[in-house]
Formats: sequence, C-alpha cells, structure tokens
Amino acid sequence: METIRLPRVMMDTAWKERLHGKGIGLVPTMGALHEGHLSLIRAARAENDMVVASIFVNPMQFAPGEDLEKYPRDMAADMEKLKAADVDILFAPEAASMYPKDFSTSVSVRGISGRLCGAFRPGHFDGVATVVLKLFNIVQPARAYFGLKDYQQTLVIRKMAKDLDLSLEIVLCPTQREADGLAMSSRNAYLSGSERAAAPVLYRALREGAAAIRDGERKTAPVREKIHSVLRSEPLVNGIQYASAYDPESLEEPEKIKGNSVLLAAAIRIGACRLIDNLILNDLK
Amino acid sequence: METIRLPRVMMDTAWKERLHGKGIGLVPTMGALHEGHLSLIRAARAENDMVVASIFVNPMQFAPGEDLEKYPRDMAADMEKLKAADVDILFAPEAASMYPKDFSTSVSVRGISGRLCGAFRPGHFDGVATVVLKLFNIVQPARAYFGLKDYQQTLVIRKMAKDLDLSLEIVLCPTQREADGLAMSSRNAYLSGSERAAAPVLYRALREGAAAIRDGERKTAPVREKIHSVLRSEPLVNGIQYASAYDPESLEEPEKIKGNSVLLAAAIRIGACRLIDNLILNDLK
Repeated sequence: METIRLPRVMMDTAWKERLHGKGIGLVPTMGALHEGHLSLIRAARAENDMVVASIFVNPMQFAPGEDLEKYPRDMAADMEKLKAADVDILFAPEAASMYPKDFSTSVSVRGISGRLCGAFRPGHFDGVATVVLKLFNIVQPARAYFGLKDYQQTLVIRKMAKDLDLSLEIVLCPTQREADGLAMSSRNAYLSGSERAAAPVLYRALREGAAAIRDGERKTAPVREKIHSVLRSEPLVNGIQYASAYDPESLEEPEKIKGNSVLLAAAIRIGACRLIDNLILNDLK
Repeated sequence: METIRLPRVMMDTAWKERLHGKGIGLVPTMGALHEGHLSLIRAARAENDMVVASIFVNPMQFAPGEDLEKYPRDMAADMEKLKAADVDILFAPEAASMYPKDFSTSVSVRGISGRLCGAFRPGHFDGVATVVLKLFNIVQPARAYFGLKDYQQTLVIRKMAKDLDLSLEIVLCPTQREADGLAMSSRNAYLSGSERAAAPVLYRALREGAAAIRDGERKTAPVREKIHSVLRSEPLVNGIQYASAYDPESLEEPEKIKGNSVLLAAAIRIGACRLIDNLILNDLK
C-alpha cells in the first residue's frame, strides 16, 4: 500500500490511472476505522481496478465546540487494517494542504442540509459537501462508497454530485452493527462501560417505531411518540435532538406517512456522547 | 460545428475526447458574441485539440430585478461567428437541463465575492461560480478562457478552481476595446446613440487614475477623487456604484497603494445601462 500525503501527488497519480482506463474506487473516511469502513472497502475492492481510502479528519465539518480535537485518531492501526484489506493507496493529507490559509470556497446544498443533524450542527453539511467534492476532484474516482449510517450525509452528497454534474457513481452500503444492534461508529469509543450497555436503546427505539408502521400506523405523531418513549425508558439518555419518521428524500417530518418508503432517524445524547442512527423501511403498502 | 443541447451528451462527448488524450479548450459565454469573445476563441483554438464554446444565459447569476429577460440573445448570428472561428462544438443547454426543478446546490467564494460588483449584485458571484463549476464538470476542459473585462469574475473562478482542486488551467485574456476605448460588452447594445457617445468616459476615468499613480501618487483618496471627477464631468453618467484603486487579489480599497500592482475598477450607470471596466497596473515601483 502506498501512502500519499500531498493532494497534488494524489491528483497526478489518479489522473494517470484514469487516463489509462483504470477505474478508481474511493472510500473517504475520518480514520479510527471499524468494520463499517472495512465493508465499504470490500465493496470498492470488488468493483474497481484500484482502491483509494482517504483518512482526513475534516475540520470544516466540525462546528465550534464540537469534538474536532478529541476525535479518535489511530493512524498506525488504521494503516494495518487498510493493508490487510488490500487497499492500493491511502490518501492522508494534512489539514494545511487541504485548507491553505486563504481557503475561501464552500459548497452548500440547500434544504436537506438544514434538517435533522443539520439543525444541530450548523455548517456541518457544507463542510461535508466541500471536502467530499475536493476529494472527488483529487482522487477522480469512478465510484465512491459511503455508509448508510450517515444517511443524511449520503443524501447531501448524492444531491451535490447530481447538481454539479459529477461523473461518478455514489455507492451506498448498509450500516454495520454490533451484535446488540448498536450502529458501528468511531464515536462509540467515547462511551463508558455503562453508556455502551445503554446505547443499543437507539436502534431498539427505531425498530419499535418501524414495527408500529409495519403494523399499519401511518400517522407520524404516534410513531414519534413510540420512539421517544423507548428512548426515555433508558435513564442514561440525557437528550433527544430529533427522533421520528421522515420523508427519505426531503427529510421533512410529514403528518402522515405517504408513499412506499419512510426513514426513521434519531440523534440522542448518552453522557457526553452524541449518537445517531437510522432505518429505512421500503415496500410499504 | 456540432451543436449539443443536453449536458449528459456533452459530458459523454467530452469524456471520450479526454480519455483519448485530447485537450479541450472551453470558452464559456452568455452569447451575443462580440470581438472580445472571439479573441478568447482564437486563444483556445491555438492551444487545444478541440474547442468548445458554450452559450448559456445563466439565470442563477442574475439578481431579481436585473436584466435576465432582456439580456441580448442572437443564436443565429452567434452560430455563424462560432463556425467562422472554427469552433468544434457549441454547447447550448436549456435552463431546465442545467437547473432542474429540485436543483439546490451552490458554490460560494467568501470575501472577494462580496466586494465591488458583488456588493451591488447579491448572489451574482455564487451564480457565476456554480455555473462555471458545472460547465467545467460537463465539458472537462484542459483550459478555460475568460476575459479580463470581468476581472472580479476571473478572480472568483481562479479561487474556486484552486480551492476545489480542479485540474485545469484558467487562461485570462486581455479586454478588447472599441476604437474609442469602450470595453466590448454584450450589454453595450443597451446604449442609445448619445449614451454610446458618452460611454468611453469610463475607460478615460480609469486611465486618468492610472496616470496619477504612474506620476507617483500612492494615496488612494486622490486617485479615487480623480476617477470620480472625470466620471462626474459626463452629464449622462447618472450613478457611480464604485470607482477607485483596489488590491488586485483581495479587492479591498487600501488607504495607500502598496506592492507593485494595483487594480483600477469602476461600475457606473449611463441611462438604464450598467457598465463596468477595469485596468491593471503592473510593475509599479
């Protein structure tokens, strides 16, 4: 595995491959890799001539006061995992080479960026859209891989790619979960033992909301109430930012669930840790 | 000359050329072509395997109340000029194919976008940056050509291209002028006979400001006053939006002119017509 630090070098390498007809699969990450990331890499490995994984804790997507400084980092362990997963190139730029001092451009996707997590993390999705566009331009992937754990992020990226006429395929991969249902996330490392034991309540709450819909409930209020009541049953949950049923494209919370698919999504706090999860129901009748 | 209307078709054509090692030169225009545009096309013709000119009156860069509806359009005459200039492809998309109903992405360059013209045309440079990025992604040029008449626009585009890691060269070409000094512009067609006769005052004013600097003046206030006094001497000038000496990179108006280059720029109204012009002095001592 080759490690590239400089955007310019990554770009030259990527263009050489692309112009030789090689398709690059890109897996953008912030490091602290877990099985969720590795499942993206396996998908990329299966579908592309070359796999590039990026590790970049993107300062632009952290709001002031968020966990940029303490975000988990373990480059040595990450490199071992990437090598074992047969990644061709690790692109791991320094923040100063991605955002030089006079950097002043941002990419914004109106509407969906302000909802759900966007309402609680001002500027977050502009930071995501901007860095992902930069990574696309630097790595020139034929396909880029994202996990559905960050559902809203995938929506923002797909919209940006379509609106800006990018010629690549955005591939979305299923959320990977621990045995007890907790969605894998680098931020799970923040949880204490008792918090970790309590955390599966998030997925349990979404599944109970889903069960109500599967049982025929189409009004959003009772579904929301069901999810909230499960979350409130866990004493270590000390904040619910949002938790309900949403339109999977607009992310708006409807009065009644219409169409044949619905998104159940929530963001909560357990201790000092913010956790998100989601569930998509398709084939509703 | 081939004419392409659909972004998807243009993109497929462009990628085929690019992957065959052909370098495309792009000249983005809003049509109503004049000698300024044709000079860009000649530059593109000299430096590239293939020349694509685009004609698209971009609604996103017009503020409400501006001249989007009456902006001069003459597709038949434009096509003759492009053919005569040996353009390979005219890309002339419909607004609905560039901005489908759910379009919601914008690209913004902080700082420089809000100054000079940006202070009088809210959202203008976001509209420019967004459409130019779209055109770059659709046409995949090795080089793109812009006229220095729209100096601030060239600055915004260069900054966007650098910040977003675009792999193309932005080529800037000198302003083309009428015999009496008036900068060529599609909007000159709005001028009545007497307004047209008065319009060269704009370039004359900038040149008098430049002469003061060449004569040793380094304080901005007297230079600004000189430019304004020339403009005020013309009774048909019925508004000065801005007119002074500026830093050519930040577009800020300094108290004293420093370094070895300076931008003289102005936007005025003559009748109902808004005219801009600029002049760059290099090699100051």
